[in-house]
Amino acid sequence: MQSAEACTGALAAIQDALYVLNGKWKIPIIVALSEGNKRFGELQRAVTGIAPKVLSNELKMLELNGFVMRHVYDTIPVSVEYELLEYSNSLGKVIDALKEWGMEHRNKLRSEAKKGKKEAEVGNH
Amino acid sequence: MQSAEACTGALAAIQDALYVLNGKWKIPIIVALSEGNKRFGELQRAVTGIAPKVLSNELKMLELNGFVMRHVYDTIPVSVEYELLEYSNSLGKVIDALKEWGMEHRNKLRSEAKKGKKEAEVGNH
Repeated sequence: MQSAEACTGALAAIQDALYVLNGKWKIPIIVALSEGNKRFGELQRAVTGIAPKVLSNELKMLELNGFVMRHVYDTIPVSVEYELLEYSNSLGKVIDALKEWGMEHRNKLRSEAKKGKKEAEVGNH
Repeated sequence: MQSAEACTGALAAIQDALYVLNGKWKIPIIVALSEGNKRFGELQRAVTGIAPKVLSNELKMLELNGFVMRHVYDTIPVSVEYELLEYSNSLGKVIDALKEWGMEHRNKLRSEAKKGKKEAEVGNH
């Protein structure tokens, strides 16, 4: 519980953050790149479930917002690599908090599923 | 920089979290309710830019995931109120991190805009 004014300020800041981080892909892409530079195909394999078109759009947005840099190397065929920029580090706490919460949430679902299974077994006897 | 395995585990947890928190509305709705119970119209005014249909869908998802409870009171006309459940508190760190980052990001954009304006002024002389 907090005051209405503090809440309005907090809400605006959170909506600002979610506006930039919009969607379920930007943070996973940043995390995948935190391991080191990656080519497009490597990124696609690292971020489970992302479609190539979506990945391409998300990378453009991440470039525009100063999180990622695209390098084009004059090889045959041309190779393209993505690099995480310094500004991505500002997301450290957000990423840690999401990781921790995701793990806790998964454990919660698992223990609920177990409990449900046990109850079903008891019901069968 | 982290090991590939640690990164894969972190990525899965983050994708789990973003799957549940999907979109830009769930966290703002939770923050708006952290101030106290709210009726539908009050929530709509608190969460800037949300359409009624979207708010209604998001509230249903939040109910399903155990973040929010819907109370229906037998008044004339019937009144409906939304209450935050205990499980929402588990998002405290995620919300704080997003709030902090949103504020920092806004300051960054502001100082960049100021710098751009100054450079434009210098250019005009």
